[in-house]
Amino acid sequence: MKGIFISMEGPDGSGKSTQIELLKNYLSENGKECIITREPGGTRISEAVREIILNKEYKEMDYMTELLLYTSARAQLVSEVILPALEEGKCVISDRFVDSSAVYQGIARGLGVETVYEINKYATRGRFPDKTFLLDLPAEVGIARKKNQAELDRLESEKIDFHIKVAEGYRQMAERDSDRIIRLDATESVEVIHSKIKMEIDKLI
Amino acid sequence: MKGIFISMEGPDGSGKSTQIELLKNYLSENGKECIITREPGGTRISEAVREIILNKEYKEMDYMTELLLYTSARAQLVSEVILPALEEGKCVISDRFVDSSAVYQGIARGLGVETVYEINKYATRGRFPDKTFLLDLPAEVGIARKKNQAELDRLESEKIDFHIKVAEGYRQMAERDSDRIIRLDATESVEVIHSKIKMEIDKLI
Repeated sequence: MKGIFISMEGPDGSGKSTQIELLKNYLSENGKECIITREPGGTRISEAVREIILNKEYKEMDYMTELLLYTSARAQLVSEVILPALEEGKCVISDRFVDSSAVYQGIARGLGVETVYEINKYATRGRFPDKTFLLDLPAEVGIARKKNQAELDRLESEKIDFHIKVAEGYRQMAERDSDRIIRLDATESVEVIHSKIKMEIDKLI
Repeated sequence: MKGIFISMEGPDGSGKSTQIELLKNYLSENGKECIITREPGGTRISEAVREIILNKEYKEMDYMTELLLYTSARAQLVSEVILPALEEGKCVISDRFVDSSAVYQGIARGLGVETVYEINKYATRGRFPDKTFLLDLPAEVGIARKKNQAELDRLESEKIDFHIKVAEGYRQMAERDSDRIIRLDATESVEVIHSKIKMEIDKLI
C-alpha cells in the first residue's frame, strides 16, 4: 500500500470535521493528494445504509443489526473507495472508521470489542488506519456543543449514559492501541490540536 | 425453545411460496399456530435493507457488502420476530434463511461457507432451523420459470453460471447437513412435494 490512511475519531461535537479540513490542507501543501470519506457513508450504497442506521424512527433496531449495518457500509467504502485510493498513492482521511464500531457497538452497546473486530476483519480486509487521532472530549461538553443542532439522529439522541460510555470507550481503545491511536484533548484550541496532528503526520510522511 | 422453526430453500422459481402456504395450512389444521417470514425482509428495518440488496442499480455492490447486508437483515428478523415467536411456542416458516447466504454468497459468490457461518453465528444467535426443505431444481428450469416475470431483481438478473453454482451449492449444503436439510425434487408435482414435506413434519410434531 503506497498511500497513507488516517482516521479521525471522537464523540459527536469533538471537532473532527474541522481538524479533517485543516489536515487535508496541510497534506495538500506537502504535495499529498487527499480524499476525505465519512462513516457511515462515502459511497452511494453506504449512504443508503446510513439512512437506515441513523433513522430515528427505527427505535426497535437490534444492536447486532446496527453493528452489521455499520460493517456493511464499511465493507463497501473500503472496497470501492479506500483501497483503490491507497493503491494510487493517495492519502485517505476518514471521519470515523472501525474504532467507532469498537467504541459505540462493542463497548457502549456492550457487544464486545472482540466481536466487533471479528466481523470487521472481513469488511476492512485487515487494513487498519496508519494513524488515528482521537479527539477526546468529556461527554457533557460534546452534548452541550451538539445541543443547538436542529435535529439529532438515532445515535445522537441516545441518553447521557450512552455518551459517557462512548467517551470512556474511546480512552480504553486509545490505551489498547497506543501506537496507532493518538489521544488529543479536544477542549484545546483548534490551532493547538492541529499543530499536534501536524507533528504526528510529519513522522509519517 | 418451544416452537418449531422450518426454512424453505431453493433457487428462484422452485416453488417455495406455494409449499410454504400448503405447509402453513397443514400445521394450522394440526393446531399449530404459524407465522411466515421471508428473507431478506420480514421486519420494517429488514425490508429497508432488502430494498438496498435487491436494487438493480447497485451493480458496484461488493460481495462482502452483500453478505453483511443479508446478515444484518437476518439479525433483525431473528431478534424481532423469529426468537419471540418460537418462545411463544409458535411455528415459524421462513422463506430462505442462513443456507441461502451459505449458497449464494459463500459458494456462488466464492466468499466461502465458513466465512458465512462465522458472521452469521452473531445474527442467528446460533438458532438454526429444526428442519429445512430444499426444493432442488436444475438451474435452467428455475430460470425458464422466472422468465415470464416482469422485472428481475439484482440477484435474479445474474448470469446462468451463477444460477448453476447456486443449484450445485444447494446440493453441497444438503449433503453437508443431511440430518437437517431434506432435499426434494422440485420438478415433481406440488401435491407430491407437499406430501413428502408432511411426512417429515409428522416426525417433528
